[in-house]
Amino acid sequence: MDRRQLIRAALLASVAPRAAFAAPRRWRADGRRVSEWLTALSRFGANSDGGVSRTGFSDADVEGRAWLREIMESTGLTAQVDPAGNLIGKLPGTVPGLKPLLFGSHIDSVPHGGNYDGDLGSLAAVEVIATLKERGYRNRHPLWVTVWCDEERGLTGSRGFVGPVSAEQLARPYVEGLTLGECIRKVGGDPAAMAAYRNDPGSIAAYIELHIEQGGVLDQSGIDVGVVEGIVTIRSAAVTITGFANHAGTTPMGERKNALLAAAELTLVVDRVVKRHPGRQVGTVGRLDVHPGASNVIPGQVDLTIELRDLDAGKLETVWNEIRAEGDAIMQRWGTSWTPPDWRAPNAAAYADPAVRSVIGAAASGLGLTTHSMPSGAGHDAQMLARIGPMGMIFVPSVGGISHSPREYTRPNDVANGANVLLQTILRLDEEP
Amino acid sequence: MDRRQLIRAALLASVAPRAAFAAPRRWRADGRRVSEWLTALSRFGANSDGGVSRTGFSDADVEGRAWLREIMESTGLTAQVDPAGNLIGKLPGTVPGLKPLLFGSHIDSVPHGGNYDGDLGSLAAVEVIATLKERGYRNRHPLWVTVWCDEERGLTGSRGFVGPVSAEQLARPYVEGLTLGECIRKVGGDPAAMAAYRNDPGSIAAYIELHIEQGGVLDQSGIDVGVVEGIVTIRSAAVTITGFANHAGTTPMGERKNALLAAAELTLVVDRVVKRHPGRQVGTVGRLDVHPGASNVIPGQVDLTIELRDLDAGKLETVWNEIRAEGDAIMQRWGTSWTPPDWRAPNAAAYADPAVRSVIGAAASGLGLTTHSMPSGAGHDAQMLARIGPMGMIFVPSVGGISHSPREYTRPNDVANGANVLLQTILRLDEEP
Repeated sequence: MDRRQLIRAALLASVAPRAAFAAPRRWRADGRRVSEWLTALSRFGANSDGGVSRTGFSDADVEGRAWLREIMESTGLTAQVDPAGNLIGKLPGTVPGLKPLLFGSHIDSVPHGGNYDGDLGSLAAVEVIATLKERGYRNRHPLWVTVWCDEERGLTGSRGFVGPVSAEQLARPYVEGLTLGECIRKVGGDPAAMAAYRNDPGSIAAYIELHIEQGGVLDQSGIDVGVVEGIVTIRSAAVTITGFANHAGTTPMGERKNALLAAAELTLVVDRVVKRHPGRQVGTVGRLDVHPGASNVIPGQVDLTIELRDLDAGKLETVWNEIRAEGDAIMQRWGTSWTPPDWRAPNAAAYADPAVRSVIGAAASGLGLTTHSMPSGAGHDAQMLARIGPMGMIFVPSVGGISHSPREYTRPNDVANGANVLLQTILRLDEEP
Repeated sequence: MDRRQLIRAALLASVAPRAAFAAPRRWRADGRRVSEWLTALSRFGANSDGGVSRTGFSDADVEGRAWLREIMESTGLTAQVDPAGNLIGKLPGTVPGLKPLLFGSHIDSVPHGGNYDGDLGSLAAVEVIATLKERGYRNRHPLWVTVWCDEERGLTGSRGFVGPVSAEQLARPYVEGLTLGECIRKVGGDPAAMAAYRNDPGSIAAYIELHIEQGGVLDQSGIDVGVVEGIVTIRSAAVTITGFANHAGTTPMGERKNALLAAAELTLVVDRVVKRHPGRQVGTVGRLDVHPGASNVIPGQVDLTIELRDLDAGKLETVWNEIRAEGDAIMQRWGTSWTPPDWRAPNAAAYADPAVRSVIGAAASGLGLTTHSMPSGAGHDAQMLARIGPMGMIFVPSVGGISHSPREYTRPNDVANGANVLLQTILRLDEEP
């Protein structure tokens, strides 16, 4: 290479990219199209209160996925279902050897859920492709729009993508009389291939997920965009308190072993202990079943759940130890007993990649939007993807902090902001070598 | 009438009765037969824990009644089902114009109940007839063995016997998709006749019910027989507490309206207020349903029952007013609200007839048994019968005070004692003019 060639190469490396990327910084997603798609998707599993009950593997889920697949293909994506049941639309990259950039979310809902949780991130991801195609953008990395299957019940699809899932797990009864494997086959996956299916650490360039906040922090503070620091770890346990069921009319007050009185004190203790530590940890008794549960019978048994969440697992351990000590005293006081909690294996806290967080922050700032760094108190597929590559999440406000409810709502302007931050983030990440 | 005739009449009136009744005082019921019948009856609706689930109007109830009807008829009773669905076995009296003496109980159970509640009083009543027949006793009063229908759900049969029951009540949905009228028809009653069916005050000589205590007072003190002072009044209400359901991971602790925390405090307050007054009143939160009831959702609504019992309705009013005042403060504290309790129309406390109590006490003493006067904290058909005639109840010990449970147990010796006190009470009442 002679001197003139060197100068030309230097010019190409410095000037040409600047010219090539100057225009994309001004590109905007079509927020109205995303909102229209959200409305269209809300028909599948629509419930009478204006939300959806589109639980993973339900018929409504299958129908919603079929509709979404058509939308994906209309933008030029090549859609397929991977062995784990995830719906993935792929666009090849122009630079050989670059790893794929993944972005998406899920479209299954909780029972009696809303129209934004998961749906927004999934449809905004397709919108990014639609915008790029309309602009004639030549993406360097392969771009994969990922719609993970059965998020709400436990990140089933993203867990399978990271893989592997054992044959034993697939053979377990899962929902409506079907095994997990049969469920995955119902949505077009290939359970027989899952034991050998995995995507190794280092196999993806990054994973980005846009999601509604599902809490009220952004809405209350009037901030446009949340840049997620990480996804909390969850300690969740089932507890059984045993007393003695007896006739509520004939058993003197002093001779009762009332499991509900012990459970009531424990429920209040969970709240009190969680609150007395500084920080953003949360703790909840969300399920509490009384047996036998008749107005004229002293409760003999109560089954309840305790759930604690924070980015700091050590703090949760401290909180739990305090609850346990107070719980032991409560059981003594009421003449009841409790089982050692049956802790579900917690997902470790998943931290967002610092570089990806910077890119998201820069993308939002470039759009003139305000940002706030925050943990995600809710679990997301992104926490599984963080195991195999750099992860980042973008939050937009949920009005009133309402989520997992037909009343869940994100304003059209925030829908458009979210799609634009996702678009600009993907464009910036695609520039990376 | 000449002088010799007068002397003879006087002799008959004084000596002959003494001779006639001397032998009956030594008669004893066959406790072993009652125990065998208890075992036989326990097959109908038997559950896996050794008790029965023979709820009123269930198939097991219908089958158990058919078996009992055969047993009744084998003793010489003429069995029939009255319009209200009660199984009544009648033995005519020898003295025209005397009112019938009623005694019995019920054979329906709570779900997952035991083998003594109701069953003992019903079968001991049949045993009284069997003993009297074997002894060749000529009863002066008509004797009616009454097996009331559907006691556990709310004294349905005895309420209908006192009557009337309106057509509107009969048309209401009751259990398993059937109206109350259809239920009553299922057990052989005649709902069409019920609006005109009633047994007026003064139409019966007395009603006596033998029952297990369903509490631990007799068992703990080692006393043989409880002579019931009366049946408590019950204040029972359904309460709904409303907060706001939201995501348990994303809603900061300070921004929650957790209906379960308010319900937990209210449950503890019911216990505390009831205990701080002297006396034998009891109070219980027995049912408590959490909505939506998922480990990861802050409870948005709790439905619970509050039940208060005492012989003194005025004391219950005081207790309730204190609970209500504390409840209002609790709702303020947690940002929740509650409905005014929907009190079910309480049954007034029903006092046993003092003369009948004396007869029961004398009958027990004549058998060499120890007695204790006590209220019944449980409701019984006897409280309906008290509206139309003198009522008395006989309690025998429940081991450990256990009731409404498969572990409900009364020792064979106490079964026999109960049958004997019932026998001797009926014999003494039959002497009355």
